[in-house]
Amino acid sequence: MVLYTTPVLNINLKKIAANYALLQQLSAPAAAAAVVKDDAYGLGAAAVAATLYAAGCRHFFVAHGSEGAIIRPHAPQAEIYVLQGIGEDSLEYFQAAGLIPVICSPDMLAFWKQHRISGIRPAIQVETGLNRLGFAVSELEQLSAADRAEFSYVLSHLSCADEQAHFMNARQLERFRNIKRRFFPDTPATLSASDGVFLGNDFHFDLTRLGAAMYGINTAPYRENQMQNVIELKAPVLQIKSLPKGEFVGYSATFRAPHDMRTAIVSAGYGDGMPRSLSNRGKVIFYHNGQPCFCPILGRVSMDNIICDITSLPPESLHTGDFGWLINDDYTVDDIARDAGTIAYELISNLGKNPRFIKQYIR
Amino acid sequence: MVLYTTPVLNINLKKIAANYALLQQLSAPAAAAAVVKDDAYGLGAAAVAATLYAAGCRHFFVAHGSEGAIIRPHAPQAEIYVLQGIGEDSLEYFQAAGLIPVICSPDMLAFWKQHRISGIRPAIQVETGLNRLGFAVSELEQLSAADRAEFSYVLSHLSCADEQAHFMNARQLERFRNIKRRFFPDTPATLSASDGVFLGNDFHFDLTRLGAAMYGINTAPYRENQMQNVIELKAPVLQIKSLPKGEFVGYSATFRAPHDMRTAIVSAGYGDGMPRSLSNRGKVIFYHNGQPCFCPILGRVSMDNIICDITSLPPESLHTGDFGWLINDDYTVDDIARDAGTIAYELISNLGKNPRFIKQYIR
Repeated sequence: MVLYTTPVLNINLKKIAANYALLQQLSAPAAAAAVVKDDAYGLGAAAVAATLYAAGCRHFFVAHGSEGAIIRPHAPQAEIYVLQGIGEDSLEYFQAAGLIPVICSPDMLAFWKQHRISGIRPAIQVETGLNRLGFAVSELEQLSAADRAEFSYVLSHLSCADEQAHFMNARQLERFRNIKRRFFPDTPATLSASDGVFLGNDFHFDLTRLGAAMYGINTAPYRENQMQNVIELKAPVLQIKSLPKGEFVGYSATFRAPHDMRTAIVSAGYGDGMPRSLSNRGKVIFYHNGQPCFCPILGRVSMDNIICDITSLPPESLHTGDFGWLINDDYTVDDIARDAGTIAYELISNLGKNPRFIKQYIR
Repeated sequence: MVLYTTPVLNINLKKIAANYALLQQLSAPAAAAAVVKDDAYGLGAAAVAATLYAAGCRHFFVAHGSEGAIIRPHAPQAEIYVLQGIGEDSLEYFQAAGLIPVICSPDMLAFWKQHRISGIRPAIQVETGLNRLGFAVSELEQLSAADRAEFSYVLSHLSCADEQAHFMNARQLERFRNIKRRFFPDTPATLSASDGVFLGNDFHFDLTRLGAAMYGINTAPYRENQMQNVIELKAPVLQIKSLPKGEFVGYSATFRAPHDMRTAIVSAGYGDGMPRSLSNRGKVIFYHNGQPCFCPILGRVSMDNIICDITSLPPESLHTGDFGWLINDDYTVDDIARDAGTIAYELISNLGKNPRFIKQYIR
């Protein structure tokens, strides 16, 4: 008998590269940048950046200067843009790694002018309707011709591109075109992330910024996902138990057995990034004769364990030490995020950073 | 002008030690163990274990063997118990670091007998009503006298101890006493985590296991929190903007300005562990004349940014580069978890693991 206690996270770099290649085709003739901020959405920025650099990607986006410094050794000749921009606390990363700040405000432009880095031309972010970071038109009007010539790219970001027919898409496109025409007629431009790629060539300009879709998330949910799932998460069964009718399960006794049941205790929980909102809602997959059996989660997800109902599985088909699947091609990051009441972006961001997984890259 | 872009997480080790000392007093004459699983609930197991070891703690609990190996150098003479038990994938950690498995099942006991480690006496977990890990009475009846003598501790776990009057507390206490009397009359026993400490001496037995309350969480919410908040999270304002009436904010345009407003864009998001469920519900705190101003989050929390309403703040009181508070003594981990629809345990577990914070320990 072999027992295991540790959950295993598989990250398929080949499929990330395949997703990138497909999105790159859809983006052409625009160039395709890879967004590896937030540690590549938790999946490991160094490994992902190295994979995509080897596949020919030469534009990368991160959120923070510290993130840019981490990927620089893996993307030596690439342009690395930093979306949160530059500040006193990140200046050294920009200097050491030759990073390109995305300037979001007049204050940040003033800071940049005080701390220019030789050979670096920043990008400028402009407001088109997300009302997050970016220069308003009234602020752009204050820029001198020399200021405007400072920038290598003009950038904005769509707010509703995951809904093909949303009125905001046309509104933001028009505002972006007007800003570009008026202030930056000769400057390369980038508007779309993954979801914008699917809105068509009008939205691509010179560069698309590929993040979520590259990681397998369906960013165009109005049609079936064209991306490959890149994540598998499995956790070992620590114990198989009988649950007599009337017994309660888990914290706060939120589940009561309506009849005699059998349960499996699976060694993963919210401490591993599995959302606690899967309590009494999610499932664990076991395979019987090659068919997936979706076993409902009973009671609260706890920090280290999930309890699921295996009553429908033949007793001889599951043993201590076997693995249950929490994410795979039959139950993707979008599926589990939907059951958890969130989006796959947040799910994988929390999942991937956990140090206690056995993390395996498939190359 | 000084700009910043990076969120800052302060973890107060002095207050963790003070919380431990108070819980230790409440536990006496039982000994008080520190639960540092899940990287000390995300706060850093090595730093927390070193602090508590210096304070005299000699019993530690982790979930996984790998976690035990991380704290061993910081707690050289301590007993380190591993709650998920032992398996093929963790055996080397037990051997190298002298860890003590908590055996949860007959299968795991059989595994232990095949892989005994010299000088280590495991603990046994018994089922009393949580219906998670642990031997059922029918399984205990199969143990020989020699099997029973193998164990250094008998352990169980309460399911509803955060509700003082919950019927499960008395039920689990009675079951635990019966099991101990029948199978382990002379073996030291441990039943209670933080929440059980507040249920009184009957629940303490020989050892309490202090986790959540030590990290400042109110585990006895039927009365005011006696613990000190140990976490502060602040993030810099990247930009201050005018938001004209009728404009939308954030992804999916879920907020529309009912009048002209002013907003601050704060450099933290769900990529930093801030729950996305705070969208249109949470707040950012700024201070004006020493008074906290709770500024509502507008629209969706995104991966790297939060947008909040600062219309009520005098314009001269807030500038780019100032910091907004996301967690502090005025808005604790319990407060933010309540607003996010989860529990502080899950919140801090996701928060603390983020590599892109500037993480500062207050010693």
